[in-house]
Amino acid sequence: MEELLKRCKIASYELELLSEDRINEALGRIRDALIENKNKILEENQKDVLVAKGVVKDSLIDRLTLNEKRIMDLAKSIDEVIALPFYPGEVIEEIKRPNGLVIKKVRVPIGVIASIFEARPNVSVDITALGLKTLNAVVLKGGKEAIRTNIVLCNVMRDAIKDIVNPDVITLIESTNREDTNKLLTMKDYIDIMIPRGSKGLINYVVSNSKIPFIETGAGNCHLYVHEKANLDMALNIAVNAKYQRPSVCNAIENILVDKSIANKFLPMLKKKFDELNIEIRGDKETKEIISCNEATEEDFFTEYNDYIVSVKVVNNVSEAIKHINIHSTKHSEAIVTEDDFAACRFMNEIDSACLYHNASTRFTDGGCFGFGAEIGISTAKLHARGPMGLKEITTYKYKIYGKGQVRE
Amino acid sequence: MEELLKRCKIASYELELLSEDRINEALGRIRDALIENKNKILEENQKDVLVAKGVVKDSLIDRLTLNEKRIMDLAKSIDEVIALPFYPGEVIEEIKRPNGLVIKKVRVPIGVIASIFEARPNVSVDITALGLKTLNAVVLKGGKEAIRTNIVLCNVMRDAIKDIVNPDVITLIESTNREDTNKLLTMKDYIDIMIPRGSKGLINYVVSNSKIPFIETGAGNCHLYVHEKANLDMALNIAVNAKYQRPSVCNAIENILVDKSIANKFLPMLKKKFDELNIEIRGDKETKEIISCNEATEEDFFTEYNDYIVSVKVVNNVSEAIKHINIHSTKHSEAIVTEDDFAACRFMNEIDSACLYHNASTRFTDGGCFGFGAEIGISTAKLHARGPMGLKEITTYKYKIYGKGQVRE
Repeated sequence: MEELLKRCKIASYELELLSEDRINEALGRIRDALIENKNKILEENQKDVLVAKGVVKDSLIDRLTLNEKRIMDLAKSIDEVIALPFYPGEVIEEIKRPNGLVIKKVRVPIGVIASIFEARPNVSVDITALGLKTLNAVVLKGGKEAIRTNIVLCNVMRDAIKDIVNPDVITLIESTNREDTNKLLTMKDYIDIMIPRGSKGLINYVVSNSKIPFIETGAGNCHLYVHEKANLDMALNIAVNAKYQRPSVCNAIENILVDKSIANKFLPMLKKKFDELNIEIRGDKETKEIISCNEATEEDFFTEYNDYIVSVKVVNNVSEAIKHINIHSTKHSEAIVTEDDFAACRFMNEIDSACLYHNASTRFTDGGCFGFGAEIGISTAKLHARGPMGLKEITTYKYKIYGKGQVRE
Repeated sequence: MEELLKRCKIASYELELLSEDRINEALGRIRDALIENKNKILEENQKDVLVAKGVVKDSLIDRLTLNEKRIMDLAKSIDEVIALPFYPGEVIEEIKRPNGLVIKKVRVPIGVIASIFEARPNVSVDITALGLKTLNAVVLKGGKEAIRTNIVLCNVMRDAIKDIVNPDVITLIESTNREDTNKLLTMKDYIDIMIPRGSKGLINYVVSNSKIPFIETGAGNCHLYVHEKANLDMALNIAVNAKYQRPSVCNAIENILVDKSIANKFLPMLKKKFDELNIEIRGDKETKEIISCNEATEEDFFTEYNDYIVSVKVVNNVSEAIKHINIHSTKHSEAIVTEDDFAACRFMNEIDSACLYHNASTRFTDGGCFGFGAEIGISTAKLHARGPMGLKEITTYKYKIYGKGQVRE
């Protein structure tokens, strides 16, 4: 493995020198190659699916399976990446010093990005396209269920770019065992950043064991706070959207906080609607005095259900809501519904989360919705990148300093 | 310890709400209190010095010792921090989306910054001033040699700000043993970022053991490359400045690479000057054929001497220089001396270090020299911050999103 990674690191230096046109050409060749080789890819994918059937859950089989439409979607997504802006080389800042030095802060690729992921084979194409577009080399390690698919996808992509750049800029770790994952997580001489993609279990494993800098993503114990001055119809509409539209995603809400003074009016509205939608409500003591529902324990308020379940709590005021959220949230996304700008301002200033919404659904925390065109993940970390991470977030910078022989006094 | 850190975290939420005027007022009170209490501080510092004398090296005694002038310098440095720009609240970017959402990317404090440091008691005042100016709370853990001084300094600072903000925003960990350091490094629920200050041993210890995000700083195996088209007098002048002015610092050079075609001319110039200055040259085989010097092993080229020693290597061309530096450097600072803009451009593009100099000394890699006004450290990491870190680098951002009831389609 070390030999492979070393070759990837060396190839990354060559990749960094490509122009926007050349990298877009390489991406175009990958797109064409995926389409040309679709039968070969589908054949290998069928083998993975056959082996997995009966062994893993149906939902995982669905994530694993490619078909002609999904391959065409992958090709289309590469076209979208080609159309995105090119960031390397951008001069972020220019400083002129009294001694005549000119300091340019220039955006550059991070270097080598590694991603560990599970059954979705499209991740290997996604990460490769986003990585290459920013002139980052990629190291991919997918789940064992998708190994044949990942091998054929990576071979097709490597072959497609080989006349433009050293194909080692796309490196697949074919081993799928845990020991090699552990070993990969120590390879900080060759890998500059680790981006885990997949279940909470996988992300926690990487976070706990990685010696390589990583960005924690994905955990979303998100809140909706219905303030006493809320438009209650708007609040209900946002509650439904943020809970019901796609409960399995990290930007869905898991908790609703309701101001005491409107609880008598809002909670019955909420119950009626959520009963229709088959969403389970777990309420604190005060909620249970107003509507009939299951009980929410303290543990519930720390839980990301990713399901048609919501915890509900009655609070006295915005201060209590802020305090509750700062204690229980995973610093992802929180929304307040209110017509009171002062309350909204406090909520957005005082809560320590990546995305704070005033009168909008938390479901907008997404690279696409933010206009980034692509998304690497949603960071719940506080260093380097927060919230949706687009192409810019997988770059860093260096300083180029131009002198005429200056030395320090 | 956990109780103390929890209180610091809670206090940090209060701190984040202060205005620029209020935080400058708090800093002003710290400055005044340091001056007013200077006798008390010097008394406690004398006790530390007495205990340390004979036990530790004289150079450490010097770093540990405060006197009236040093306290006045500390007070002056706080005035300089007061004069620096205030970053929290700055709108970095504003995005208007087609659905009417307005997304503001707003600069905010990171939260709680912890620093582990050694004998210099001025670090507690430095980190506190820089932390507070960016509305970050600070957790301080100094070396045992300075414990009485740190206690009195923190008490004076806490007392000075108590009418403005909860004094728990300055939290000293009084224990100085290794177990408590280990425990502190796991407290990621309360501490957002760890900044080690001090020796390589300390920094490596933090990097290897911290469960809290940290930024690696300090290691500087820096290079000067004298290209075939260099102005040799300029190259010699930069070599002397970058090696001799202050060899113990991270932005000093440890290696000089010399192009083969000028080695016969430049190496004797270098030897003459470095002999005068009592700088030891360790040369590779080709260097030793031209000048008499000790031999440089492969290990030498990986070594940060922090001393009057330099490794010298003859290279064939800019490609070889770039390759050598990318393998051996710590990604801190490298300089090329040349009149050839194309060679300079390649050097600056292709080397993966934080700061690349064309015709200037690496000694300028410094927050002050970059015009940042203050410096937290020099990052050799690639995420979050690279090179000199000023106040801006100890902030992060959040997104505030303003809607009118929008939900996701």
